[in-house]
Amino acid sequence: MKKVDLNCDLGESFGNYKLGMDEQILPLITSANIACGFHASDPVVMSRTVKMAAESGVAAGAHPGYQDLVGFGRRNMNVAPAEVTDIVMYQIGALEAFCRANGIAMQHVKPHGAMYNMAEKDDKLAEAICRGIKAVNPDLILLGPGSGKMVKAAKALGLKTAGEVFADRAYMEDGTLVPRSQEGAMITDEEEAVARVLEMVQKGTVTAITGKKIEVQADSICVHGDGQKALLFVQKIRSELEKAGVVIVPMKEVIVGES
Amino acid sequence: MKKVDLNCDLGESFGNYKLGMDEQILPLITSANIACGFHASDPVVMSRTVKMAAESGVAAGAHPGYQDLVGFGRRNMNVAPAEVTDIVMYQIGALEAFCRANGIAMQHVKPHGAMYNMAEKDDKLAEAICRGIKAVNPDLILLGPGSGKMVKAAKALGLKTAGEVFADRAYMEDGTLVPRSQEGAMITDEEEAVARVLEMVQKGTVTAITGKKIEVQADSICVHGDGQKALLFVQKIRSELEKAGVVIVPMKEVIVGES
Amino acid sequence: MKKVDLNCDLGESFGNYKLGMDEQILPLITSANIACGFHASDPVVMSRTVKMAAESGVAAGAHPGYQDLVGFGRRNMNVAPAEVTDIVMYQIGALEAFCRANGIAMQHVKPHGAMYNMAEKDDKLAEAICRGIKAVNPDLILLGPGSGKMVKAAKALGLKTAGEVFADRAYMEDGTLVPRSQEGAMITDEEEAVARVLEMVQKGTVTAITGKKIEVQADSICVHGDGQKALLFVQKIRSELEKAGVVIVPMKEVIVGES
Amino acid sequence: MKKVDLNCDLGESFGNYKLGMDEQILPLITSANIACGFHASDPVVMSRTVKMAAESGVAAGAHPGYQDLVGFGRRNMNVAPAEVTDIVMYQIGALEAFCRANGIAMQHVKPHGAMYNMAEKDDKLAEAICRGIKAVNPDLILLGPGSGKMVKAAKALGLKTAGEVFADRAYMEDGTLVPRSQEGAMITDEEEAVARVLEMVQKGTVTAITGKKIEVQADSICVHGDGQKALLFVQKIRSELEKAGVVIVPMKEVIVGES
Repeated sequence: MKKVDLNCDLGESFGNYKLGMDEQILPLITSANIACGFHASDPVVMSRTVKMAAESGVAAGAHPGYQDLVGFGRRNMNVAPAEVTDIVMYQIGALEAFCRANGIAMQHVKPHGAMYNMAEKDDKLAEAICRGIKAVNPDLILLGPGSGKMVKAAKALGLKTAGEVFADRAYMEDGTLVPRSQEGAMITDEEEAVARVLEMVQKGTVTAITGKKIEVQADSICVHGDGQKALLFVQKIRSELEKAGVVIVPMKEVIVGES
Repeated sequence: MKKVDLNCDLGESFGNYKLGMDEQILPLITSANIACGFHASDPVVMSRTVKMAAESGVAAGAHPGYQDLVGFGRRNMNVAPAEVTDIVMYQIGALEAFCRANGIAMQHVKPHGAMYNMAEKDDKLAEAICRGIKAVNPDLILLGPGSGKMVKAAKALGLKTAGEVFADRAYMEDGTLVPRSQEGAMITDEEEAVARVLEMVQKGTVTAITGKKIEVQADSICVHGDGQKALLFVQKIRSELEKAGVVIVPMKEVIVGES
Repeated sequence: MKKVDLNCDLGESFGNYKLGMDEQILPLITSANIACGFHASDPVVMSRTVKMAAESGVAAGAHPGYQDLVGFGRRNMNVAPAEVTDIVMYQIGALEAFCRANGIAMQHVKPHGAMYNMAEKDDKLAEAICRGIKAVNPDLILLGPGSGKMVKAAKALGLKTAGEVFADRAYMEDGTLVPRSQEGAMITDEEEAVARVLEMVQKGTVTAITGKKIEVQADSICVHGDGQKALLFVQKIRSELEKAGVVIVPMKEVIVGES
Repeated sequence: MKKVDLNCDLGESFGNYKLGMDEQILPLITSANIACGFHASDPVVMSRTVKMAAESGVAAGAHPGYQDLVGFGRRNMNVAPAEVTDIVMYQIGALEAFCRANGIAMQHVKPHGAMYNMAEKDDKLAEAICRGIKAVNPDLILLGPGSGKMVKAAKALGLKTAGEVFADRAYMEDGTLVPRSQEGAMITDEEEAVARVLEMVQKGTVTAITGKKIEVQADSICVHGDGQKALLFVQKIRSELEKAGVVIVPMKEVIVGES
């Protein structure tokens, strides 16, 4: 019986500023990547978000980012690897306070934005992130592309990992995403996107932009909750997965037994 | 055999900005109140500070403050009690990440600056702080004036507490500090300050500014490491305490057996 | 011929976070209070907002606030008057850069949130704000309650002033607003609000919550653009004012000839 | 008669954090690059720094940087050129407020740290900075390497420029600095440094690291005030220049008559 997780970024509001449709996406997902106050969020938002996730039975994960609120953590920054380790530790610790207060165990860590993208191109950064995770809580799962540098670094340190796939993105032959600037980067046809998701989850394969069939590790599907259309798409993916007999559970239950 | 703790604020540097003489004060104290990135410090400084404390055998505590870096957390801010709970939780969690990475258990929490001062005048704020501590880690000790609102709120919630006294400050009859703006607020004579410390630690009493003898809970003495003169004063207090047979240990060892 | 200005807070977005309906409110108002990056906004938002105001013929003013982004500048902070002078100067200067780039002269300054409210209760703060304005540009108009401390301080320093009134708020006999916590603070009936606005603009009087008729200086009406309902209300005020023969122009044209 | 300017970064303190020896360096220099609150400084520090510069007769310039206080603006950040224009405008405007209050005209702009370094390698960034300067005040002088991208972009936009040289750094044949990571990057011998400065100022040439003699535009010498040794070195440069008959004046007086 195939299992898969649906993960989504959550808790990205800040002070007076509201972002996302957290209440609406929560019933549809199984893992939440919760912003930790550096690229988005604040302690009040984190407290509320972890509480909502706990009440919804959605597994909570840290979504640490660069200290760049005005750039939403999306801008590449030349942060030294040793500092990245420290800012990852800080953010995991901060989120864990709210997990404990809500009686849940944090499940995973998914770096955000520029930190995620830069780490997938830089072994030292990938290792720095994973060192931070391990130092705070070696039971946390690193969530990233299954064939990527973060997952590789996590495995080398003995951390658990979950491979994530994207429903709306095209892949290169090496398993990396086609850059958004390149034509064909986005899968805009919904039927095609759903069909690709099903293939990734059930067979562990997907057709790269070159036409070649490649292997992917589809423990978790990255979805979005930032609009009505996005919500409907998640509902569709859910129902198609369920129709196909795939069980949707938090990633910790997906990776059980994986080597 | 009398025991007492020496506590000092530590880790108040930020990025390129250096503050304090942490390396020099560490051998002289037994408990460190470590800034958590809101009124001072950053993840790199916190990481380094906790590591130094751990290596020195100095017990680590969180020193949470208001989110006011430019004001160093010293300016009164009208933060709602529920938000204070969340910002205390966030900061404790962040510091705990570094404690865990260094294999030590966090010992205590001492609110910083305006948060400390405002809470001593506002029961709701005092309770909000203690709720945050309890939610994250009910084993943490609340450090504050023994007869004050924070200690009272902590006890009401079942938290452990330690009473702190000040060597260089005059007291009102109710056990609160004489405001700095008032004449006689500071004890500037070193001999007198040391004599007062000895009396507070050994007899649990001190002479208030009115001349009346009052009771104080002297589990921990607040000292400073922000200059050569301050360091020498701490050395003097230490040696006089030791000469008098007082054992200087972290507050967790001082309060053992207290009811 | 009676004249009045309609002022509204603008440019309160920040980075990835959107706030307000600036495009929709601009055609309805004559003066914009533009956030300056302390309690809201950033240089990109300011640049865009000043450009939009310039293109719409709406007069631009600075809306300086406390350095409290997470609290949106709404929380009282104990900032020293001398520092308030400096933060007001800084923010006016920053906004003026964009005014110059767009070939317009800045018209006015209206302090935001907690700074506004605190200054109306503290002569020293009111004076500190006005000193900052005068030091940077003595031609700027101070916008505040006509009978209040800021207008008084501005006049004492020789600055021009404009008195603002609120359509949706009840007044005390001394011309201050009834605190929101008090019953009857808000004028919720639209017809009543419009009638009050007309009386304030045409006769310079309004009925205080006690029933007593008081005088008000209605150079500018404070309106809001933070929702569809608010926009419709502004349209209604505009059309009723115009029906009554009142000309709606920027405050600099309203106060011409006032002593 | 040869003239040259001595420029130094100033006003880099922040809140409770002190940095630099501003009082001591001011009598030795003729132009101050004043931090504007993004990578360092705050409104109170800026106010005090501009006042000191005005009183010392030192010309004031803006030293805009990236919004990275914890990294002191030294970390490369992927900020879009259009946003760089806006953050440069914002910071110039903010500083100009204090110049006006002190009755002085701002003289120049020298980008800080990563913004400076990145712009010297990126024509679009160099142009973005210069567009920002021109939009706010076309009389400002752009200070940068004489043969570099910022000076080139400034000239293309019709801005005045001043070429700066470094006493303690080795040069490549193309006039760029030898990267600090490379051997021989720093001129550590004081006599050699002074001799190089004299040659750069008097003849407009310097020996590159390859041994080849190259031309440099030495309108201004960049000096440092961050320690006792640095101060003594500036005094030595001053006295040697004066002995050689070079007049030390603000850069606006150096570039008069240059084409």
